[in-house]
This record gives sequence, structure tokens and C-alpha cells, in this order.
Amino acid sequence: MKNSFGNNITITLYGESHGSSVGCVIDGLASGIPVDENNINQFLALRRPNGTISTSRCEADEFSIKSGVFNGYTTGTPICIDIPNEDKRSADYEKTANLARPSHADYTANCKYNGYQDYRGGGHFSGRITAAIVAAGGIIIPALKRKGISIGTHIKSCGGVEDRGFSDYKADIELLSNLNFAVLDNSAGSAMQEKIIEAKNNLDSIGGVLETAVIGIDAGMGEPWFDSVESLISHAMFSVPGIKGIEFGAGFEIANMTGSTANDEFSVNNGSIVTNTNNSGGINGGITNGMPIVFRCAVRPTPTIGKEQKTINFKTNENTILAAKGRHDPCIAHRARIVVDSLTAIVIADLLTTKYGTDWLAK
Amino acid sequence: MKNSFGNNITITLYGESHGSSVGCVIDGLASGIPVDENNINQFLALRRPNGTISTSRCEADEFSIKSGVFNGYTTGTPICIDIPNEDKRSADYEKTANLARPSHADYTANCKYNGYQDYRGGGHFSGRITAAIVAAGGIIIPALKRKGISIGTHIKSCGGVEDRGFSDYKADIELLSNLNFAVLDNSAGSAMQEKIIEAKNNLDSIGGVLETAVIGIDAGMGEPWFDSVESLISHAMFSVPGIKGIEFGAGFEIANMTGSTANDEFSVNNGSIVTNTNNSGGINGGITNGMPIVFRCAVRPTPTIGKEQKTINFKTNENTILAAKGRHDPCIAHRARIVVDSLTAIVIADLLTTKYGTDWLAK
Amino acid sequence: MKNSFGNNITITLYGESHGSSVGCVIDGLASGIPVDENNINQFLALRRPNGTISTSRCEADEFSIKSGVFNGYTTGTPICIDIPNEDKRSADYEKTANLARPSHADYTANCKYNGYQDYRGGGHFSGRITAAIVAAGGIIIPALKRKGISIGTHIKSCGGVEDRGFSDYKADIELLSNLNFAVLDNSAGSAMQEKIIEAKNNLDSIGGVLETAVIGIDAGMGEPWFDSVESLISHAMFSVPGIKGIEFGAGFEIANMTGSTANDEFSVNNGSIVTNTNNSGGINGGITNGMPIVFRCAVRPTPTIGKEQKTINFKTNENTILAAKGRHDPCIAHRARIVVDSLTAIVIADLLTTKYGTDWLAK
Amino acid sequence: MKNSFGNNITITLYGESHGSSVGCVIDGLASGIPVDENNINQFLALRRPNGTISTSRCEADEFSIKSGVFNGYTTGTPICIDIPNEDKRSADYEKTANLARPSHADYTANCKYNGYQDYRGGGHFSGRITAAIVAAGGIIIPALKRKGISIGTHIKSCGGVEDRGFSDYKADIELLSNLNFAVLDNSAGSAMQEKIIEAKNNLDSIGGVLETAVIGIDAGMGEPWFDSVESLISHAMFSVPGIKGIEFGAGFEIANMTGSTANDEFSVNNGSIVTNTNNSGGINGGITNGMPIVFRCAVRPTPTIGKEQKTINFKTNENTILAAKGRHDPCIAHRARIVVDSLTAIVIADLLTTKYGTDWLAK
Repeated sequence: MKNSFGNNITITLYGESHGSSVGCVIDGLASGIPVDENNINQFLALRRPNGTISTSRCEADEFSIKSGVFNGYTTGTPICIDIPNEDKRSADYEKTANLARPSHADYTANCKYNGYQDYRGGGHFSGRITAAIVAAGGIIIPALKRKGISIGTHIKSCGGVEDRGFSDYKADIELLSNLNFAVLDNSAGSAMQEKIIEAKNNLDSIGGVLETAVIGIDAGMGEPWFDSVESLISHAMFSVPGIKGIEFGAGFEIANMTGSTANDEFSVNNGSIVTNTNNSGGINGGITNGMPIVFRCAVRPTPTIGKEQKTINFKTNENTILAAKGRHDPCIAHRARIVVDSLTAIVIADLLTTKYGTDWLAK
Repeated sequence: MKNSFGNNITITLYGESHGSSVGCVIDGLASGIPVDENNINQFLALRRPNGTISTSRCEADEFSIKSGVFNGYTTGTPICIDIPNEDKRSADYEKTANLARPSHADYTANCKYNGYQDYRGGGHFSGRITAAIVAAGGIIIPALKRKGISIGTHIKSCGGVEDRGFSDYKADIELLSNLNFAVLDNSAGSAMQEKIIEAKNNLDSIGGVLETAVIGIDAGMGEPWFDSVESLISHAMFSVPGIKGIEFGAGFEIANMTGSTANDEFSVNNGSIVTNTNNSGGINGGITNGMPIVFRCAVRPTPTIGKEQKTINFKTNENTILAAKGRHDPCIAHRARIVVDSLTAIVIADLLTTKYGTDWLAK
Repeated sequence: MKNSFGNNITITLYGESHGSSVGCVIDGLASGIPVDENNINQFLALRRPNGTISTSRCEADEFSIKSGVFNGYTTGTPICIDIPNEDKRSADYEKTANLARPSHADYTANCKYNGYQDYRGGGHFSGRITAAIVAAGGIIIPALKRKGISIGTHIKSCGGVEDRGFSDYKADIELLSNLNFAVLDNSAGSAMQEKIIEAKNNLDSIGGVLETAVIGIDAGMGEPWFDSVESLISHAMFSVPGIKGIEFGAGFEIANMTGSTANDEFSVNNGSIVTNTNNSGGINGGITNGMPIVFRCAVRPTPTIGKEQKTINFKTNENTILAAKGRHDPCIAHRARIVVDSLTAIVIADLLTTKYGTDWLAK
Repeated sequence: MKNSFGNNITITLYGESHGSSVGCVIDGLASGIPVDENNINQFLALRRPNGTISTSRCEADEFSIKSGVFNGYTTGTPICIDIPNEDKRSADYEKTANLARPSHADYTANCKYNGYQDYRGGGHFSGRITAAIVAAGGIIIPALKRKGISIGTHIKSCGGVEDRGFSDYKADIELLSNLNFAVLDNSAGSAMQEKIIEAKNNLDSIGGVLETAVIGIDAGMGEPWFDSVESLISHAMFSVPGIKGIEFGAGFEIANMTGSTANDEFSVNNGSIVTNTNNSGGINGGITNGMPIVFRCAVRPTPTIGKEQKTINFKTNENTILAAKGRHDPCIAHRARIVVDSLTAIVIADLLTTKYGTDWLAK
């Protein structure tokens, strides 16, 4: 599937960082879903570089919906959203076209595409392409919300600073939806931003952990084995550049627990079935159990840094030194958060459309 | 895809724990791959319950290849491997058919399948189905080995005991291939097995972390975005019952590093391009960089335990108490290891077949 | 997908004519669909060689449901149906293993599988594999019938003899469901059977045209462009060995009509919308319009014949002569009819499950 | 897959007739394939309305390649080609928005999309979308040609006039590649065009049969059962608006032949294996046999005609009369020919990429 993902609702990505545009085609959305361009703009703004803690490349992200929306509603046919690239400085990249930024895709892209890849700014491997994912989120997240399903992601940790965990899921998700820098605890947020600026001043970068919660999903969603909810969400998340780990519920900690402490006991609570803990992250046997779906993604420090690094010229096969010029982010965790929300929305919308049929999302 | 996985090489699973049999259909394997039933038997033996550290359910795993193999070689057409269920004690499960084992799939299966699921021993959600995956591994892992690609998984930690990490990948993988209890450090293995027996005696269970390495893969394999190597491997791994987290390279730790320490600097070494560290786990931008692919999976403690737990009867919607009778494993990490190897082999074989064409694996 | 077909309901085939067994895995069927083994037996009987007008190879078709059915109902998980091969005479084929039966798959299989294919009786390319499709039909066709959807196929022509067309679709489909030799006009049927026996006596074979109708489907089913109803049905039909053409509604004749005569005018009839003619075969723009879906498949004369034919030995690359011994059908049109019904049912069930959701077929 | 098609090479379509643009995303093409915009323009010109025998809607088809091409070569990443709609007269359609053109998709689209579809000019069901397919053909057909594979389609019949069949495939395909009105016999072409003008003058329309040949493909391509070459080609063809039948080789006529006359005898000819006839259309058992692939598609008369027709208003559920205004084609067979070529190229490129690996097409 390469650049396409999803079963009944699919997204197909295209574009390069310094090409003509980036964009996506969303297929399989029900007809009759309201499309509000303000939502899309608001989502794109959450991904956009913001001030001193981001790259200075500034994109207006003036998107254009080429198809699939008519009179303010989805038609049910493919929606192409195209986002032209504007603030391009391709010259930044020409001198270093054959130098492999350590831990970036320059070298692997060259191996895969035999020298034909667009090397400027990471080309098709650039985080820039996630703008298209976020634009799709601008349609799907509000649609899910109308069906009672909410998604929220906060920066669980960044530069060694920890945010508090989710407590009241509903209120916390609501809170996050309005934040540019998504933390539940403001003071943690300030400390994180200081760490980011510090990294920037060091010509270096830092990473973080994102924690996501989804509420409002019935028990019984998902498919056994290869379409487990964890399989689908992780598949989507590992397509986001820089994500190197994912865990659900108690995650890696569960490996050190015993069955009797790790197991989420069920109980009947006012007639509805709940679990008293949520170490399983809302998923048993790959299927939702009605509790919040909770997962965390590890975001690596941005590989492109201003500091000098040893590397190679893969054209001449020689060792060399690289200090990235260009414009780059000292941290992408805060920008990646809305990408994670949007991809999660695509997975959830697809799963529920499979369960309830093609028209469900608009009903 | 539900019970099928893969693009050019696909595996389709079927079966229930206490039904007639479990099995799989493998499609897309090149013709002319040697099939040695001893290999399959040897792999199945590694998954089979072993002595005091496993369930007392004992399956001979006498499989039958129904199709796709002729005169000892793959024909290129679908291979169905069927493994009859033998040591079934269905009566164990009837009394508790409507009681949800905490953190098991009983409740979610009932929500999804509206009461029609085969509830005996976890039905289609049972780890028993992984025998079919392992049988497929018995064909594909030796085929990859003939192409110079080796896969090995060890128990990185279990019950709080840590194994040493990989040092000499080639030798370590070779070592693991002959071990029933896959650890690189024997004394760690003994300590782990004591922890497992201790858990068993407590009518409880423990989990662990599995670490996997793949060597011999060229740089440039994998696809951008949704078919990133991480996406495909994680998709496969989260289909294995009990896995709740996965991380590549430095994994979650990378979130606390800086770019300058996390980045894997490239260098030319005797004419070939390597990285000096491997925090990326052999993957940059979703594409292999020629270094070992390294990932770790968190395996939860087996949810079925003998201890009393609070739960519900989902037919009567009443709170109740459950102490699982039946037969169950105090730990599944050591048995899951060959499942992880086998699924990894399927992903790798599929990726390389996509790159090199349908006949590659037998050439 | 090779040996798998379908989006939300999929069938995966395996097996060779003279191997251990043939079978299929059906995934995605709703839980709670009644499974009556009598239905499956009855369907398999319609495909089985019958008397003088068929091959003398006689299979009991004693199938075994390995998974996915519990207490008489589908569980919602994959159903594996295995049908052992019994009346095998492999020796018939060994002498001619390298002789290419003209218009059969012997030569192309050898090219594709480099000599590793199971050559006995056509191996994986044998019509024998369609028994698995028919067994699946034995579950799905009755399920569709419970939802008001009926499928029927008759032999429109065979050996130059024409059957009458559908007139009262409901009654005609009902009539066909009980016939071994599926014609609407008995006398045409007798004449066809004479032609078949005549061909047999000539050590030759004949073909025919099958016409299929599906009633009870709402308007608005199917997907635009690549999942048009015609695309999906034709994709399925051309997997049946021997089918070389398909046409919908007026089919090839429509090419000679004018728009004003070919167009199906709409009218409101007792409040419901119908068309006065059905030259479109119930499909406009790839989507159902509520009229019967009607299509015809051209079935070639069986390529395996007793007459001497020029051919080659593809091992020695020499010209030679072949007069097929073995056992073969003088015509397969009458046996293919239930295969066409069954594949049609799979396509329809998949399309409607996509529209109405995973649980629809059992509701 | 709805608007996507293909396994290793995929095309995804988007757009509406009177929306902002139509276009496609092509994924999986090898890196390093030359992209000549002149080729694309030349192909689009073959599809464009031409003079008196076509609609008077005139589109410049000024396309824009948004991604996936760099310095004149494919990069290996998705290629988005966007073709803005220009000569739109949406007002033509508003008055008749709720009137179902007989045999067009107006009514079925309304049933499927619940009134949210873009009704102008057929919306997403318009033949206009095929411009995107043809643009893709402008890259893939020349790439196949460089690998020795040629595709050609001629108008086998139109308005009752017959063109001669293929004789020298290579020369005939070469001849067709330069023709606007693709016939092998010029005088037949003139007669056909007279029939088209006659239909136009009658406010009516006519159809035709297209015959396609593909040469240069090795024996052994394609997959068994559901990815038979016939399955894939027919799946693609039935997505083209107006195609109602397809047949391979002798097609429907084969149903009236005997095995001994229908079978294509093999012979060794100067060391290479050929068949003396080609009633199988180059395909045995779904796999290529090295002979030309030959198939014919029945194209219906354009459903939109100026003549008065009975129909319904599907909003008011009333009978009414419609005489289409707008601009429409008296015949689309001649314009569809390059669409058929392009789709065929996509299927063939995908099949051979599966066989030979991702990089094959550029090697």
C-alpha cells in the first residue's frame, strides 16, 4: 500500500518538501459530512511552526480542496486536498545533496531510489507531508466528534520534563483541543519549552513522548489478529517520521507486573460494564472493551541539527563532516501531536465504518 | 484484512483453540523453495509448552500440508498447513462460558460476535493459533537463511531479570536458534525460570520483553510512509496475543536523548557504509540502512490466572468472582519468541519479494 | 491478492487436483449465520460430475469444516472448509507431465513456476478447486436468500442449442435452484445433453454461455470506478477456468444500438422506481439501479480432449502429438453454473456488507 | 479499493466533471523513468473531443504534475497529476439536477450518496475523470515501450461498420499510435464517422467495439485464480464508463466451437514456443502464454442524448420527460480507446513489476 492506508476509508499521500505541493486523497468517507474549512485551517495551524520553538520555515498552508466536497458537504467520492509549498529555499540543499544527515532518510532514500529522489529538504520523507494528514484530520475529527468520539494527545514528556497524566479524559481532551503546546500541566509546558529553546541554542534537538486517548468508542470494535486495534494504530503511527516506539495501556511497564496486578478487573457499574484499571489501554484481544483507548508514542530528537556531525558523502563514498544549514526544528513532538490525532481519527473512522457501514459517519 | 497479512506474500489464519484444527494459508511464496518437515517440527517444538514453566496442555502439533508443496519443494501456489487440535478439555470452559477473564478477549469477543463466538479456551483469540504462524516460519526462516538473512529473538527481561544485549549479532542469533529458553546469558535464564515457577506457585503469571535482531538485509528495503519497515513489523507483532508495546533501536529511551547523541553517524568502513551506533534500529525514514534491524516487544503477564479475580458474568450482567481452572501458562514470553521470529520472517520475505520480484526467495 | 478475493468478505483458495485436498478460508462473514451442512452437500452435488455428460472421475466431496462454525452458526471468525481429494489416478499424468495440453495451463504454469508446479491433473489450475468456492456458496447463498436476495444461472446456450431467456425472474430462479442441468426450457436441455454426448463420442468437447440473474438488491449498491459492480463480478468470473467473456445487460449487442433504443427509461411504478427495459443489466455507472443484475459468461469447450492434437514437450522443446488419456469433461458449462452462482454470492455479500456493516448478513 | 486499483503499482482517481479539477495519484512506479510532458499532452489530445464527432465542450487539459517527478524522471514516490476543469457550464445542469438521464448514473448516484453528490455533468461518474487515467498512460505506455511492450486499440466496429482485424500486430499497433480516429482500415473509419455524425444529427448516439492487443510480454506472467490476467484487465475495463462487455481471444464465439477447433495447438518455431491460432487471446489458465494478449470491449451508445426520453424526477418521484441540453458526445468509442490503452498499461506494468520487482520498469 506504500502511500495509502485504510480499508474502507483510505488516505493516499503525495508530495515532496520542496516540490510543487503536498496533499492527499481521502476515499470512502460517507456523503453528507459537513466540511468546514475553518476546522482544517485551525488544525493546520496546530501543526505549523510556532515561534522560537520551531523551524523558521513558515508555510501559509493555503490548501485547496480539488474534489469530493460540494456545497459544504462531502459527496462520498474522493476528496483531494492540495497544499502548495511556498517558503522554499531549495538552494539550501543543493550543496549537501549527497551528504547523508545522520538518522535522516537521505542515505536510505538514495539506496532505494537509486539517486532519482528529490533530495531537497528530505523530499517525500519530510515531515512537511504530514500537513496533508492533518488536513484530512480537519474533516474526520469533527465528524467523529459529532458521533460522540473524541481524541486528544498531550506531550507526556519532553526534554526530561513530565506532564501529568490524563485524569478526567473528557475534560482533558477538551482542554487539549485549544492548546498550541499540548500539555495538561501548564508549568510542565513552560519547562519543556525552555528545554526546546536550550536545545536550539546548542544547535541540537530533543525528543519527547506523546500520549493519546480516545473516548466514546463502544466495546467490540476492531478485528482479530492482523486488524487488531493495536496493529492498525501502530501501523499508522510508525509512518510518522521520528516515531520509534509505541505502547498501549501500561505498555512496557506491564512486562514487569504480575497477572494479578496487571489484569483489569471488570465490574458492572450502573448497568454498564467497565474495568477498574486500564492497563490494557481499552483493548483486549485486539478488540475495544469500551474503556478509553490509551497509547504513547516515542518521538526521537529531530535528526537535522546545526552541530557538526561525522557522516558520509554517498556519491563519493567518503567520510566527511556535516553541520546542517537549512531551517529545522529543535523538537517536533509538539507539532507531531496533531498528526497523531489525525491519523488516529482515520484508523477509528475506518474501523467503525467497517462495523457500521459506509454511511455511518454522516448519519 | 482481518486474518490475512502481507502484500506479495500473505498469510491467512484460521482456527479455534478447541475446534477441529488451527492452520494457515501462505500465498505468494516463490516456487522451488525446499520444504523440510523437520524444520517445521523443530519450530513447533520451540513454541510447544515445555515442562514446569508452561501449561500442562500438551499438543503433538502433528501438522498436515494440504497443498502447495510437491516433491519437497514449494509449487508457488497456496500452502495450507493444518494442525489438528488434540488435547482438548472443552468441559473446563463450559461452566465459565459467560465469565469474562480480566484482560482476556472473552468479553470483547462476546461484544463483537454477539454470543456466537467459540468461547472454549479463548476460541479464535487463543495463543494456540500462533502454532500456524510458527509452521509458516518453518518454511520461510530457512529460506531467508539461504539468502543470508538471519532472525533471532531473546528474552531481554522476564520477572525483573535482565538478559545481556546482543553483542556479536551473528553468533548470538546462531546461539539462540538452538535454545528452548532463548537467553544469551544462561544464568539470567535460570533466574527467569525460577521467577516463572514462583509465579505459577502463586497461581499468578509474569511477563517479559523480547528483543529481536535481523541481519543480512541490504540498505534501501521498505517503502515510504504506510509501508515503513516499522509500520509493517509493528502491525504484525500487535497481532500476537499479549504484546502491548514495541520499540525500535533505542526506542522509548531516544525520547530523552538529544539529536547529537541519538543520531547514528555514518562512516565508510572498508568500502561499505555503516553507522557507528544503531539507535535507529537499522531503519531511517522507514527504510533499512543496512545495519541490524533491532526491536523489542513488551509481553504482558498471561491474563488467565488461578488466583481469584473480580469480574462479571456478561450474560446476566452481574458482578462475580473467577478463579480460572483450565490449563494455562504462568508466562508466555519464552513461547512467544518463535512466533515473533516467524512473523518477522513473513514481513521481511514480503518486503524483499516486493523489491526483487516473485521468484527471488527461491533463486 | 492472487488466491484471495474480496474486501470485507474474502475467500482464499488452496489445493491441487491430485494433492491432499482442496479448500478455502472465508473471512469476514458475520457471526450468527446458520450453517447447514446439507446445503453445502446439495451445492457440491450440483457441481459434481453427473453421469454420461461428465468426467468419470467421481469425488464424494466429503468436506470438513475446520473452523469458524460453532453449534451450527458462524462464529464471525475465519471458516476453513477442507475437501479431501479421493478418486485420484496420478499415474495418468506422469507420462505426459511435460506435454502441454493445448489451451490448458500446463505450459503457462511451467513458465511461471519453473518446473516446480504439481502437474497432475492441472494441479492448482484444475476446475477441481472450484469445489471450495461452491462449498462457500453453500453458506452464503442461503444467507443472502434470508435477506431477500436470490441468484440463479441457466445454460443460455450449449452446442448451438439456445435456452429461453429469463421471463419471471423470481419463478425462474426458484426453478433453476432444483435442477441438475440448469435450463429454463426442458427440451432445450435435452438437446444440449445430446450435443454433449455427441462431443464425448467424438473425443471432443463443447462450450456454452451461462446467464445469471440476481434479484432483491436495492439501488445504490457498489462503488464508483474500480469497485463498480461489473468490475467486481467480472474479476471473480474470469478466475473460473474456461471463462473467456462476460457481458452485462444487452452486452455486446448494445454496441450496435442507438442511445434512444439502448437507454433504459425510468418510470415510477406504484411508488417505486423501475426501468422499462434492462439493457444496462441492473447497473448504471457501476452502481445498482434496483433492477435485476443480469450477465452472461462465455465458457470455452474443455481444452482436455481425447482427440489427437499437435503440441510440444516443453522440457525437450520438441514438437509432438498428444491424445489426452486421463478422465475429462466433454463440457463444463453445466457444472460451472453453481460456481458462477457461488462467486456471484461472494461479490454481492461483500458489497452489501461494505454498505451495511459487518453484522448485516446475519441480522 | 473504490477509486484505487493495482497491487504494486496503483492509481487513485479523484475529481468531478464540473468541480475544480480531476486527477490521479500513481504510486509504485520505479524511480528513474523518464517523464516527457509532450507524451502526456499527446495522449490527452487523443482523448480530447475532436471536431464534429464529439462534444463541443473543449478542455485544454493543462495538467500539472504536483509530485513524484524531479529533473525529468520519476522519483519513485507518488506522482500526483492534476488537470483543472476549465470549460464548465454548470448552469446547464442545475435545472435538471433531479432528473435521471436514462442509463446514466444520475439516479444510482443519488441512491448511493443520498443527494449529496455533485450532479453537474455526471460529477464523479463523468468520462471526464478518464483524462487522469490517460495522463498516467502518458508516463507508463512509453516506459513499457522501452521494455519492448506495445499496446494498441482500434475501433473494431462502430454504428454497424467493421474495421479489419489485427494482422501484423507490431505494424498495426505502430500505425494506431498516430491516429486520432483509431482504425486499421481508413475507409471503415470514414464510414464510422459518417454514422457518428448521422447519430448526432438525429440527437441520438451510437456505440462500438474496441479491440486491444498487447505484444512483447513473456509467457508466465499473471497469477492464478483471482489475479488472472483476464480478471485484472476486465476489472480495470469495467471501470470505464459505458463498457458493458469484454471478451478475450475468440471470446463469446468460442462457446460455439469444439475443443478441437478452439484449442490453440503449440509448436516450436525457430526454437521458440508459439501457438498456431490465438483463440485464447494469449492467456491460458489466467497466465500469459507469450502470444499477443487480445481482447474486445463493448462500448454502449452515450446515454446522454438530445432526443426526448421518458424518465423520472427522483426528488418528487414523478414521471417526466427529458431532452438533454448540455454538451455531449454522439459516440465515445473513439475517445475511449486511449483510456483502454492506458488502463491496460497500468495492469501490465503492475503484473510485471510484481514478477520482476519494484525497480524493473526503469531498468
